[in-house]
Amino acid sequence: MKKYIVGIDVGGTNVKLGLVNAAGHIVARRHLPTKTYSRNKTKLIDAIINAVDELLVDMKLTRKNVEGVGIGLPGLIDPIQGIVRYLPNIPGWRNVPLQKIMQDRLGVPVFLENDVNMITLAEWKYGAGQGQDNFMCITLGTGVGGGLILNGSIYRGEGFVAGEIGHMPLEDRTLEMFVGNAHLQERAGRIFKNKNIRLEDVFDLAKVGNARAIEFWDEAGTYIGTTLAGVINLLNLRMIVIGGGVSANFRFLAPAIKKTIKQRAMKVQSSMVKVVRTKLLNDAGIIGAQILVKELGVKK
Amino acid sequence: MKKYIVGIDVGGTNVKLGLVNAAGHIVARRHLPTKTYSRNKTKLIDAIINAVDELLVDMKLTRKNVEGVGIGLPGLIDPIQGIVRYLPNIPGWRNVPLQKIMQDRLGVPVFLENDVNMITLAEWKYGAGQGQDNFMCITLGTGVGGGLILNGSIYRGEGFVAGEIGHMPLEDRTLEMFVGNAHLQERAGRIFKNKNIRLEDVFDLAKVGNARAIEFWDEAGTYIGTTLAGVINLLNLRMIVIGGGVSANFRFLAPAIKKTIKQRAMKVQSSMVKVVRTKLLNDAGIIGAQILVKELGVKK
Repeated sequence: MKKYIVGIDVGGTNVKLGLVNAAGHIVARRHLPTKTYSRNKTKLIDAIINAVDELLVDMKLTRKNVEGVGIGLPGLIDPIQGIVRYLPNIPGWRNVPLQKIMQDRLGVPVFLENDVNMITLAEWKYGAGQGQDNFMCITLGTGVGGGLILNGSIYRGEGFVAGEIGHMPLEDRTLEMFVGNAHLQERAGRIFKNKNIRLEDVFDLAKVGNARAIEFWDEAGTYIGTTLAGVINLLNLRMIVIGGGVSANFRFLAPAIKKTIKQRAMKVQSSMVKVVRTKLLNDAGIIGAQILVKELGVKK
Repeated sequence: MKKYIVGIDVGGTNVKLGLVNAAGHIVARRHLPTKTYSRNKTKLIDAIINAVDELLVDMKLTRKNVEGVGIGLPGLIDPIQGIVRYLPNIPGWRNVPLQKIMQDRLGVPVFLENDVNMITLAEWKYGAGQGQDNFMCITLGTGVGGGLILNGSIYRGEGFVAGEIGHMPLEDRTLEMFVGNAHLQERAGRIFKNKNIRLEDVFDLAKVGNARAIEFWDEAGTYIGTTLAGVINLLNLRMIVIGGGVSANFRFLAPAIKKTIKQRAMKVQSSMVKVVRTKLLNDAGIIGAQILVKELGVKK
Protein backbone atom coordinates (compact mmCIF):
# COMPACT_ATOMS: atom_id res chain seq x y z
CA MET A 1 0.00 0.00 0.00
CA LYS A 2 1.55 3.23 -1.19
CA LYS A 3 1.94 5.92 1.44
CA TYR A 4 1.38 9.57 0.65
CA ILE A 5 1.57 12.82 2.56
CA VAL A 6 -1.02 15.55 2.16
CA GLY A 7 0.57 18.99 2.10
CA ILE A 8 -1.65 21.99 2.78
CA ASP A 9 -0.40 25.52 2.18
CA VAL A 10 -2.78 28.02 3.77
CA GLY A 11 -2.34 31.51 2.36
CA GLY A 12 -4.28 34.73 2.69
CA THR A 13 -5.71 34.28 -0.84
CA ASN A 14 -5.73 30.53 -1.51
CA VAL A 15 -5.46 27.28 0.34
CA LYS A 16 -3.38 24.95 -1.85
CA LEU A 17 -3.44 21.22 -1.28
CA GLY A 18 -1.24 18.53 -2.77
CA LEU A 19 -0.76 14.81 -2.49
CA VAL A 20 2.99 14.27 -2.14
CA ASN A 21 4.66 10.94 -2.85
CA ALA A 22 7.73 9.49 -1.15
CA ALA A 23 10.02 11.13 -3.71
CA GLY A 24 8.69 14.60 -2.86
CA HIS A 25 6.60 14.96 -6.02
CA ILE A 26 3.10 16.41 -6.03
CA VAL A 27 0.86 13.84 -7.77
CA ALA A 28 -2.51 15.63 -7.35
CA ARG A 29 -3.63 19.16 -6.45
CA ARG A 30 -6.64 21.14 -5.22
CA HIS A 31 -7.17 24.70 -4.17
CA LEU A 32 -9.73 26.77 -2.29
CA PRO A 33 -10.28 30.53 -2.07
CA THR A 34 -9.41 31.41 1.56
CA LYS A 35 -11.64 34.48 1.74
CA THR A 36 -14.84 32.57 0.99
CA TYR A 37 -14.36 30.81 4.30
CA SER A 38 -12.18 33.12 6.29
CA ARG A 39 -14.91 34.55 8.51
CA ASN A 40 -15.75 31.12 9.77
CA LYS A 41 -13.05 28.81 11.08
CA THR A 42 -15.28 25.72 11.05
CA LYS A 43 -16.31 26.25 7.44
CA LEU A 44 -12.69 26.61 6.34
CA ILE A 45 -11.75 23.43 8.20
CA ASP A 46 -14.75 21.60 6.64
CA ALA A 47 -13.70 22.77 3.18
CA ILE A 48 -10.12 21.61 3.73
CA ILE A 49 -11.29 18.18 4.92
CA ASN A 50 -13.50 17.88 1.84
CA ALA A 51 -10.64 18.89 -0.41
CA VAL A 52 -8.39 16.25 1.16
CA ASP A 53 -10.99 13.59 0.45
CA GLU A 54 -11.44 14.85 -3.11
CA LEU A 55 -7.68 14.63 -3.65
CA LEU A 56 -7.78 11.00 -2.53
CA VAL A 57 -10.80 10.16 -4.69
CA ASP A 58 -9.02 11.72 -7.70
CA MET A 59 -6.20 9.25 -7.18
CA LYS A 60 -8.44 6.31 -6.25
CA LEU A 61 -7.00 6.30 -2.75
CA THR A 62 -8.46 6.38 0.76
CA ARG A 63 -7.38 7.93 4.04
CA LYS A 64 -5.56 4.67 4.74
CA ASN A 65 -3.05 5.64 2.07
CA VAL A 66 -2.21 8.82 3.95
CA GLU A 67 0.77 8.64 6.28
CA GLY A 68 0.24 12.12 7.58
CA VAL A 69 -0.89 15.65 6.86
CA GLY A 70 1.33 18.71 7.10
CA ILE A 71 -0.24 22.17 7.22
CA GLY A 72 1.66 25.39 6.68
CA LEU A 73 0.01 28.57 7.93
CA PRO A 74 0.94 32.24 7.63
CA GLY A 75 1.43 33.29 11.22
CA LEU A 76 2.50 32.28 14.68
CA ILE A 77 2.32 28.49 14.98
CA ASP A 78 3.31 26.22 17.85
CA PRO A 79 4.35 23.05 15.99
CA ILE A 80 5.07 21.14 19.20
CA GLN A 81 1.66 21.73 20.83
CA GLY A 82 -0.04 21.74 17.42
CA ILE A 83 -1.72 25.08 17.98
CA VAL A 84 -2.33 28.02 15.64
CA ARG A 85 -1.55 30.97 17.90
CA TYR A 86 -2.35 33.83 15.56
CA LEU A 87 -2.77 34.50 11.82
CA PRO A 88 -2.38 38.22 11.09
CA ASN A 89 -4.13 38.04 7.71
CA ILE A 90 -6.92 35.57 8.46
CA PRO A 91 -9.29 36.97 11.09
CA GLY A 92 -10.55 34.90 13.98
CA TRP A 93 -7.69 32.43 14.29
CA ARG A 94 -6.33 32.66 17.82
CA ASN A 95 -5.14 29.68 19.86
CA VAL A 96 -6.87 27.12 17.64
CA PRO A 97 -5.80 23.51 18.43
CA LEU A 98 -5.86 22.72 14.72
CA GLN A 99 -3.68 19.63 15.00
CA LYS A 100 -6.16 17.89 17.31
CA ILE A 101 -9.21 19.10 15.38
CA MET A 102 -7.85 17.82 12.07
CA GLN A 103 -6.56 14.57 13.54
CA ASP A 104 -9.94 13.81 15.10
CA ARG A 105 -11.66 14.52 11.78
CA LEU A 106 -9.22 12.75 9.47
CA GLY A 107 -7.97 9.90 11.65
CA VAL A 108 -4.37 10.40 10.49
CA PRO A 109 -1.41 12.22 12.10
CA VAL A 110 -1.47 15.97 11.42
CA PHE A 111 1.36 18.46 11.97
CA LEU A 112 1.47 22.24 11.80
CA GLU A 113 4.26 24.63 10.87
CA ASN A 114 4.52 28.21 9.76
CA ASP A 115 4.55 28.67 6.00
CA VAL A 116 8.14 29.88 5.71
CA ASN A 117 9.56 26.97 7.69
CA MET A 118 7.53 24.62 5.49
CA ILE A 119 9.19 26.12 2.40
CA THR A 120 12.58 25.91 4.09
CA LEU A 121 12.10 22.20 4.84
CA ALA A 122 11.15 21.58 1.19
CA GLU A 123 14.15 23.47 -0.22
CA TRP A 124 16.39 21.62 2.24
CA LYS A 125 15.37 18.11 1.21
CA TYR A 126 14.19 18.49 -2.39
CA GLY A 127 15.21 21.95 -3.56
CA ALA A 128 18.16 24.32 -3.81
CA GLY A 129 19.40 23.61 -0.27
CA GLN A 130 19.81 19.85 -0.64
CA GLY A 131 22.48 18.44 1.65
CA GLN A 132 23.14 21.75 3.40
CA ASP A 133 23.63 21.86 7.18
CA ASN A 134 23.62 25.61 7.59
CA PHE A 135 21.40 27.61 5.32
CA MET A 136 18.66 30.17 5.26
CA CYS A 137 15.64 30.33 2.99
CA ILE A 138 14.25 33.79 2.40
CA THR A 139 10.84 34.64 0.97
CA LEU A 140 10.44 37.98 -0.76
CA GLY A 141 6.79 38.92 -1.10
CA THR A 142 4.26 41.10 0.68
CA GLY A 143 6.25 40.26 3.77
CA VAL A 144 9.92 39.33 3.90
CA GLY A 145 10.39 36.16 5.92
CA GLY A 146 13.00 33.52 6.50
CA GLY A 147 13.58 29.99 7.74
CA LEU A 148 16.79 28.57 9.14
CA ILE A 149 18.46 25.18 8.95
CA LEU A 150 21.32 25.25 11.47
CA ASN A 151 23.57 22.38 12.55
CA GLY A 152 21.55 20.15 10.24
CA SER A 153 18.07 20.75 11.66
CA ILE A 154 15.33 23.31 11.51
CA TYR A 155 15.90 26.18 13.93
CA ARG A 156 12.62 27.56 15.25
CA GLY A 157 13.83 29.65 18.19
CA GLU A 158 12.55 29.82 21.73
CA GLY A 159 8.96 30.73 20.78
CA PHE A 160 8.91 29.36 17.19
CA VAL A 161 9.30 32.79 15.60
CA ALA A 162 12.94 32.72 14.48
CA GLY A 163 13.82 33.80 10.95
CA GLU A 164 12.21 37.25 10.81
CA ILE A 165 14.85 38.74 8.56
CA GLY A 166 12.36 41.28 7.20
CA HIS A 167 12.25 42.88 10.62
CA MET A 168 15.97 43.27 11.07
CA PRO A 169 16.84 46.96 11.49
CA LEU A 170 18.19 48.64 8.36
CA GLU A 171 19.08 52.30 8.64
CA ASP A 172 16.12 53.84 10.50
CA ARG A 173 13.65 51.22 9.23
CA THR A 174 13.69 47.48 8.54
CA LEU A 175 14.49 45.38 5.48
CA GLU A 176 10.80 44.77 4.79
CA MET A 177 10.16 48.52 4.73
CA PHE A 178 12.60 48.72 1.82
CA VAL A 179 11.91 45.57 -0.17
CA GLY A 180 8.47 44.34 0.86
CA ASN A 181 6.06 44.24 -2.08
CA ALA A 182 4.13 47.34 -1.05
CA HIS A 183 7.28 49.43 -0.76
CA LEU A 184 8.68 48.23 -4.10
CA GLN A 185 5.33 48.91 -5.75
CA GLU A 186 5.15 52.41 -4.37
CA ARG A 187 8.74 53.12 -5.32
CA ALA A 188 8.22 51.82 -8.86
CA GLY A 189 5.22 54.16 -9.16
CA ARG A 190 7.38 57.14 -8.24
CA ILE A 191 10.36 56.23 -10.41
CA PHE A 192 8.31 55.49 -13.52
CA LYS A 193 5.77 58.23 -12.74
CA ASN A 194 2.97 55.72 -13.18
CA LYS A 195 1.18 54.50 -10.11
CA ASN A 196 -0.37 51.59 -11.98
CA ILE A 197 2.94 50.05 -13.01
CA ARG A 198 3.32 46.49 -11.73
CA LEU A 199 6.55 44.88 -10.51
CA GLU A 200 6.19 42.44 -13.41
CA ASP A 201 6.42 45.43 -15.76
CA VAL A 202 9.60 46.63 -14.06
CA PHE A 203 10.97 43.10 -14.50
CA ASP A 204 10.08 43.14 -18.21
CA LEU A 205 11.70 46.55 -18.59
CA ALA A 206 14.88 45.26 -16.97
CA LYS A 207 14.89 42.32 -19.39
CA VAL A 208 14.98 44.69 -22.37
CA GLY A 209 17.80 46.67 -20.78
CA ASN A 210 15.92 49.67 -19.35
CA ALA A 211 18.50 51.39 -17.14
CA ARG A 212 16.02 52.71 -14.57
CA ALA A 213 14.49 49.25 -14.16
CA ILE A 214 17.89 47.62 -13.76
CA GLU A 215 18.82 50.29 -11.21
CA PHE A 216 15.50 49.66 -9.40
CA TRP A 217 16.29 45.98 -8.83
CA ASP A 218 19.90 46.78 -8.10
CA GLU A 219 18.88 49.08 -5.28
CA ALA A 220 16.55 46.43 -3.81
CA GLY A 221 19.41 43.92 -4.06
CA THR A 222 21.71 46.27 -2.17
CA TYR A 223 19.26 46.50 0.73
CA ILE A 224 18.85 42.72 0.78
CA GLY A 225 22.62 42.25 0.56
CA THR A 226 23.28 44.61 3.46
CA THR A 227 20.98 42.67 5.76
CA LEU A 228 22.33 39.35 4.48
CA ALA A 229 25.91 40.49 5.17
CA GLY A 230 24.92 40.80 8.82
CA VAL A 231 23.19 37.42 8.83
CA ILE A 232 26.23 35.81 7.22
CA ASN A 233 28.65 37.36 9.71
CA LEU A 234 26.41 36.20 12.53
CA LEU A 235 25.62 32.70 11.27
CA ASN A 236 28.42 31.75 8.84
CA LEU A 237 25.95 30.04 6.50
CA ARG A 238 26.89 27.95 3.47
CA MET A 239 23.88 28.94 1.43
CA ILE A 240 21.05 31.41 1.13
CA VAL A 241 18.05 30.37 -0.94
CA ILE A 242 15.85 33.19 -2.17
CA GLY A 243 12.20 32.53 -2.91
CA GLY A 244 8.82 34.31 -2.84
CA GLY A 245 7.13 36.27 -5.60
CA VAL A 246 9.76 38.99 -5.88
CA SER A 247 12.47 36.37 -6.43
CA ALA A 248 11.21 36.05 -10.01
CA ASN A 249 13.58 39.01 -10.50
CA PHE A 250 16.48 37.05 -9.04
CA ARG A 251 18.76 37.62 -12.01
CA PHE A 252 18.49 41.40 -11.55
CA LEU A 253 18.65 41.26 -7.74
CA ALA A 254 21.54 38.81 -7.47
CA PRO A 255 24.45 40.95 -8.71
CA ALA A 256 23.82 43.67 -6.10
CA ILE A 257 23.13 41.11 -3.37
CA LYS A 258 26.43 39.35 -4.08
CA LYS A 259 28.42 42.56 -4.46
CA THR A 260 27.10 43.95 -1.17
CA ILE A 261 27.82 40.71 0.68
CA LYS A 262 31.37 40.80 -0.65
CA GLN A 263 31.75 44.40 0.51
CA ARG A 264 30.12 44.13 3.91
CA ALA A 265 30.53 40.55 5.13
CA MET A 266 33.80 39.27 6.57
CA LYS A 267 36.18 37.52 4.20
CA VAL A 268 35.89 33.97 5.55
CA GLN A 269 32.11 34.23 5.80
CA SER A 270 31.55 35.79 2.38
CA SER A 271 33.93 33.40 0.62
CA MET A 272 31.97 30.34 1.71
CA VAL A 273 28.36 31.43 1.13
CA LYS A 274 26.33 30.84 -2.01
CA VAL A 275 23.23 32.87 -2.86
CA VAL A 276 20.84 30.95 -5.12
CA ARG A 277 17.26 31.06 -6.26
CA THR A 278 14.54 28.73 -4.99
CA LYS A 279 14.18 25.56 -7.00
CA LEU A 280 10.68 24.46 -6.01
CA LEU A 281 9.00 27.86 -6.45
CA ASN A 282 5.37 27.84 -5.32
CA ASP A 283 5.27 24.11 -4.63
CA ALA A 284 7.66 24.33 -1.70
CA GLY A 285 4.84 25.18 0.74
CA ILE A 286 3.14 21.87 -0.09
CA ILE A 287 6.20 19.65 -0.47
CA GLY A 288 7.60 20.72 2.92
CA ALA A 289 4.79 18.70 4.52
CA GLN A 290 6.65 15.55 3.51
CA ILE A 291 9.59 16.45 5.74
CA LEU A 292 7.49 17.97 8.50
CA VAL A 293 5.45 14.82 9.02
CA LYS A 294 8.60 12.75 9.26
CA GLU A 295 10.50 15.23 11.40
CA LEU A 296 7.79 15.93 13.95
CA GLY A 297 6.29 12.46 13.64
CA VAL A 298 9.49 10.82 14.81
CA LYS A 299 9.86 13.09 17.84
CA LYS A 300 6.36 12.50 19.15
CA MET B 1 41.77 9.54 41.57
CA LYS B 2 40.28 12.99 41.09
CA LYS B 3 39.98 14.15 37.50
CA TYR B 4 40.63 17.75 36.52
CA ILE B 5 40.52 19.75 33.33
CA VAL B 6 43.19 22.27 32.43
CA GLY B 7 41.70 25.42 30.88
CA ILE B 8 44.01 27.70 28.89
CA ASP B 9 42.85 31.14 27.81
CA VAL B 10 45.30 32.54 25.25
CA GLY B 11 44.98 36.30 24.92
CA GLY B 12 47.02 38.95 23.14
CA THR B 13 48.45 40.13 26.47
CA ASN B 14 48.36 37.13 28.81
CA VAL B 15 47.98 33.39 28.66
CA LYS B 16 45.86 32.41 31.66
CA LEU B 17 45.80 28.81 32.88
CA GLY B 18 43.54 27.21 35.43
CA LEU B 19 42.95 23.78 36.89
CA VAL B 20 39.19 23.25 36.81
CA ASN B 21 37.44 20.68 38.96
CA ALA B 22 34.32 18.68 38.08
CA ALA B 23 32.08 21.40 39.59
CA GLY B 24 33.50 24.03 37.25
CA HIS B 25 35.63 25.77 39.90
CA ILE B 26 39.17 26.94 39.27
CA VAL B 27 41.33 25.42 42.00
CA ALA B 28 44.75 26.70 40.83
CA ARG B 29 45.97 29.38 38.41
CA ARG B 30 49.00 30.49 36.44
CA HIS B 31 49.63 33.14 33.86
CA LEU B 32 52.25 34.04 31.28
CA PRO B 33 52.89 37.24 29.35
CA THR B 34 52.05 36.40 25.72
CA LYS B 35 54.37 38.96 24.16
CA THR B 36 57.52 37.51 25.73
CA TYR B 37 56.96 34.44 23.59
CA SER B 38 54.86 35.64 20.75
CA ARG B 39 57.63 35.80 18.16
CA ASN B 40 58.33 32.14 18.63
CA LYS B 41 55.57 29.56 18.52
CA THR B 42 57.69 26.76 19.99
CA LYS B 43 58.74 28.88 22.96
CA LEU B 44 55.15 29.80 23.71
CA ILE B 45 54.11 26.16 23.54
CA ASP B 46 57.06 25.17 25.80
CA ALA B 47 56.07 27.85 28.30
CA ILE B 48 52.44 26.67 28.31
CA ILE B 49 53.49 23.04 28.86
CA ASN B 50 55.74 24.13 31.76
CA ALA B 51 52.92 26.17 33.25
CA VAL B 52 50.56 23.16 33.05
CA ASP B 53 53.10 21.05 34.93
CA GLU B 54 53.61 23.79 37.50
CA LEU B 55 49.86 23.96 38.07
CA LEU B 56 49.83 20.24 38.76
CA VAL B 57 52.86 20.39 41.09
CA ASP B 58 51.16 23.21 43.04
CA MET B 59 48.25 20.87 43.67
CA LYS B 60 50.40 17.75 44.23
CA LEU B 61 48.93 16.19 41.11
CA THR B 62 50.37 14.57 37.98
CA ARG B 63 49.31 14.48 34.33
CA LYS B 64 47.40 11.31 35.21
CA ASN B 65 44.94 13.48 37.11
CA VAL B 66 44.18 15.47 33.96
CA GLU B 67 41.17 14.29 31.98
CA GLY B 68 41.80 16.78 29.19
CA VAL B 69 43.02 20.21 28.21
CA GLY B 70 40.90 22.89 26.57
CA ILE B 71 42.59 25.85 24.87
CA GLY B 72 40.76 29.01 23.85
CA LEU B 73 42.51 31.20 21.30
CA PRO B 74 41.68 34.62 19.86
CA GLY B 75 41.20 33.90 16.18
CA LEU B 76 40.09 31.44 13.57
CA ILE B 77 40.16 27.94 15.05
CA ASP B 78 39.08 24.62 13.55
CA PRO B 79 37.96 22.71 16.64
CA ILE B 80 37.17 19.56 14.68
CA GLN B 81 40.58 19.23 12.99
CA GLY B 82 42.30 20.77 16.02
CA ILE B 83 44.07 23.43 14.00
CA VAL B 84 44.77 27.08 14.71
CA ARG B 85 44.06 28.68 11.34
CA TYR B 86 44.97 32.28 12.11
CA LEU B 87 45.42 34.58 15.12
CA PRO B 88 45.15 38.23 14.05
CA ASN B 89 46.92 39.59 17.15
CA ILE B 90 49.63 36.96 17.64
CA PRO B 91 52.04 36.92 14.69
CA GLY B 92 53.21 33.70 13.09
CA TRP B 93 50.27 31.46 13.93
CA ARG B 94 48.89 30.08 10.69
CA ASN B 95 47.61 26.53 10.24
CA VAL B 96 49.27 25.23 13.40
CA PRO B 97 48.09 21.69 14.35
CA LEU B 98 48.13 22.71 18.01
CA GLN B 99 45.88 19.89 19.17
CA LYS B 100 48.29 17.21 17.98
CA ILE B 101 51.39 19.10 19.14
CA MET B 102 50.00 19.52 22.65
CA GLN B 103 48.61 16.00 22.83
CA ASP B 104 51.96 14.52 21.83
CA ARG B 105 53.73 16.62 24.46
CA LEU B 106 51.25 16.18 27.31
CA GLY B 107 49.92 12.70 26.67
CA VAL B 108 46.33 13.78 27.43
CA PRO B 109 43.41 14.74 25.15
CA VAL B 110 43.58 18.36 24.02
CA PHE B 111 40.82 20.40 22.36
CA LEU B 112 40.84 23.84 20.76
CA GLU B 113 38.13 26.46 20.45
CA ASN B 114 37.96 30.17 19.79
CA ASP B 115 37.99 32.31 22.92
CA VAL B 116 34.43 33.63 22.58
CA ASN B 117 32.92 30.15 22.15
CA MET B 118 34.89 29.03 25.21
CA ILE B 119 33.30 31.85 27.24
CA THR B 120 29.90 30.96 25.80
CA LEU B 121 30.26 27.32 26.87
CA ALA B 122 31.22 28.42 30.40
CA GLU B 123 28.28 30.84 30.75
CA TRP B 124 25.98 28.12 29.42
CA LYS B 125 26.89 25.45 31.95
CA TYR B 126 28.12 27.44 34.98
CA GLY B 127 27.20 31.07 34.40
CA ALA B 128 24.34 33.37 33.52
CA GLY B 129 23.05 31.13 30.71
CA GLN B 130 22.51 27.99 32.76
CA GLY B 131 19.80 25.76 31.37
CA GLN B 132 19.23 27.90 28.28
CA ASP B 133 18.72 26.26 24.89
CA ASN B 134 18.83 29.41 22.77
CA PHE B 135 21.11 32.16 23.89
CA MET B 136 23.93 34.38 22.76
CA CYS B 137 26.96 35.48 24.73
CA ILE B 138 28.46 38.79 23.66
CA THR B 139 31.91 40.11 24.55
CA LEU B 140 32.40 43.86 24.53
CA GLY B 141 36.08 44.77 24.45
CA THR B 142 38.68 45.78 21.87
CA GLY B 143 36.64 43.65 19.52
CA VAL B 144 32.94 42.89 19.79
CA GLY B 145 32.36 39.15 19.47
CA GLY B 146 29.69 36.62 20.17
CA GLY B 147 28.99 32.94 20.69
CA LEU B 148 25.73 31.11 20.08
CA ILE B 149 23.96 28.24 21.80
CA LEU B 150 21.09 27.21 19.51
CA ASN B 151 18.76 24.23 19.87
CA GLY B 152 20.74 23.28 22.97
CA SER B 153 24.20 23.05 21.45
CA ILE B 154 27.03 25.31 20.42
CA TYR B 155 26.52 26.76 16.95
CA ARG B 156 29.83 27.28 15.15
CA GLY B 157 28.66 27.82 11.59
CA GLU B 158 29.92 26.29 8.38
CA GLY B 159 33.55 27.44 8.82
CA PHE B 160 33.58 27.88 12.62
CA VAL B 161 33.31 31.66 12.46
CA ALA B 162 29.67 32.23 13.45
CA GLY B 163 28.84 34.84 16.08
CA GLU B 164 30.55 37.91 14.62
CA ILE B 165 27.96 40.35 15.90
CA GLY B 166 30.54 43.16 15.96
CA HIS B 167 30.66 42.98 12.17
CA MET B 168 26.94 43.23 11.58
CA PRO B 169 26.18 46.34 9.50
CA LEU B 170 24.91 49.31 11.47
CA GLU B 171 24.13 52.46 9.53
CA ASP B 172 27.12 52.88 7.20
CA ARG B 173 29.50 51.09 9.55
CA THR B 174 29.36 48.06 11.89
CA LEU B 175 28.52 47.65 15.57
CA GLU B 176 32.21 47.32 16.48
CA MET B 177 32.95 50.66 14.81
CA PHE B 178 30.53 52.25 17.27
CA VAL B 179 31.15 50.37 20.52
CA GLY B 180 34.56 48.70 20.20
CA ASN B 181 36.97 49.90 22.86
CA ALA B 182 38.99 52.12 20.53
CA HIS B 183 35.89 53.93 19.28
CA LEU B 184 34.48 54.46 22.78
CA GLN B 185 37.85 55.72 23.96
CA GLU B 186 38.12 58.18 21.12
CA ARG B 187 34.56 59.36 21.61
CA ALA B 188 35.06 59.83 25.35
CA GLY B 189 38.13 61.96 24.58
CA ARG B 190 36.05 64.21 22.35
CA ILE B 191 33.06 64.51 24.68
CA PHE B 192 35.10 65.24 27.79
CA LYS B 193 37.71 67.23 25.86
CA ASN B 194 40.46 65.11 27.43
CA LYS B 195 42.17 62.54 25.27
CA ASN B 196 43.67 60.80 28.29
CA ILE B 197 40.31 60.01 29.87
CA ARG B 198 39.84 56.28 30.37
CA LEU B 199 36.56 54.38 30.02
CA GLU B 200 36.89 53.54 33.73
CA ASP B 201 36.75 57.29 34.42
CA VAL B 202 33.58 57.65 32.36
CA PHE B 203 32.12 54.76 34.37
CA ASP B 204 33.05 56.48 37.65
CA LEU B 205 31.53 59.75 36.40
CA ALA B 206 28.30 57.92 35.54
CA LYS B 207 28.23 56.45 39.03
CA VAL B 208 28.23 59.93 40.58
CA GLY B 209 25.45 61.03 38.25
CA ASN B 210 27.40 62.96 35.59
CA ALA B 211 24.85 63.55 32.83
CA ARG B 212 27.33 63.45 29.94
CA ALA B 213 28.78 60.17 31.21
CA ILE B 214 25.33 58.62 31.58
CA GLU B 215 24.46 59.84 28.09
CA PHE B 216 27.73 58.36 26.79
CA TRP B 217 26.84 54.85 27.98
CA ASP B 218 23.24 55.32 26.93
CA GLU B 219 24.32 56.03 23.37
CA ALA B 220 26.56 52.95 23.31
CA GLY B 221 23.64 50.91 24.66
CA THR B 222 21.38 52.18 21.88
CA TYR B 223 23.83 50.96 19.22
CA ILE B 224 24.13 47.58 20.94
CA GLY B 225 20.34 47.37 21.33
CA THR B 226 19.73 48.14 17.66
CA THR B 227 21.95 45.28 16.53
CA LEU B 228 20.52 42.99 19.19
CA ALA B 229 16.97 43.77 18.04
CA GLY B 230 17.94 42.32 14.65
CA VAL B 231 19.58 39.28 16.22
CA ILE B 232 16.52 38.68 18.38
CA ASN B 233 14.14 38.97 15.43
CA LEU B 234 16.30 36.57 13.48
CA LEU B 235 17.01 34.03 16.22
CA ASN B 236 14.20 34.39 18.79
CA LEU B 237 16.64 33.89 21.67
CA ARG B 238 15.66 33.48 25.31
CA MET B 239 18.70 35.20 26.70
CA ILE B 240 21.61 37.46 25.84
CA VAL B 241 24.59 37.40 28.18
CA ILE B 242 26.87 40.42 27.97
CA GLY B 243 30.52 40.06 28.97
CA GLY B 244 33.93 41.51 28.10
CA GLY B 245 35.72 44.48 29.66
CA VAL B 246 33.15 47.09 28.62
CA SER B 247 30.37 45.09 30.31
CA ALA B 248 31.66 46.45 33.63
CA ASN B 249 29.38 49.36 32.69
CA PHE B 250 26.41 47.03 32.27
CA ARG B 251 24.19 48.97 34.63
CA PHE B 252 24.54 52.10 32.47
CA LEU B 253 24.34 50.22 29.17
CA ALA B 254 21.39 48.00 30.04
CA PRO B 255 18.55 50.56 30.14
CA ALA B 256 19.23 51.74 26.57
CA ILE B 257 19.83 48.19 25.33
CA LYS B 258 16.50 47.03 26.75
CA LYS B 259 14.61 50.12 25.61
CA THR B 260 15.94 49.81 22.05
CA ILE B 261 15.11 46.10 21.90
CA LYS B 262 11.58 46.89 23.02
CA GLN B 263 11.28 49.56 20.33
CA ARG B 264 12.88 47.70 17.44
CA ALA B 265 12.36 43.97 18.01
CA MET B 266 9.05 42.26 17.31
CA LYS B 267 6.65 41.87 20.21
CA VAL B 268 6.83 38.08 20.64
CA GLN B 269 10.61 38.10 20.33
CA SER B 270 11.24 41.04 22.65
CA SER B 271 8.81 39.81 25.30
CA MET B 272 10.68 36.53 25.74
CA VAL B 273 14.30 37.67 25.78
CA LYS B 274 16.34 38.56 28.86
CA VAL B 275 19.49 40.65 28.69
CA VAL B 276 21.84 39.93 31.59
CA ARG B 277 25.44 40.46 32.59
CA THR B 278 28.08 37.72 32.53
CA LYS B 279 28.36 35.83 35.80
CA LEU B 280 31.81 34.30 35.44
CA LEU B 281 33.59 37.46 34.28
CA ASN B 282 37.22 36.81 33.35
CA ASP B 283 37.20 33.19 34.45
CA ALA B 284 34.81 32.11 31.71
CA GLY B 285 37.64 31.66 29.18
CA ILE B 286 39.24 29.05 31.46
CA ILE B 287 36.12 27.34 32.80
CA GLY B 288 34.74 26.77 29.29
CA ALA B 289 37.46 24.15 28.83
CA GLN B 290 35.51 21.89 31.18
CA ILE B 291 32.59 21.73 28.76
CA LEU B 292 34.71 21.75 25.60
CA VAL B 293 36.66 18.65 26.63
CA LYS B 294 33.44 16.79 27.35
CA GLU B 295 31.61 18.05 24.29
CA LEU B 296 34.34 17.43 21.71
CA GLY B 297 35.74 14.45 23.61
CA VAL B 298 32.49 12.54 23.27
CA LYS B 299 32.18 13.19 19.54
CA LYS B 300 35.68 11.96 18.66
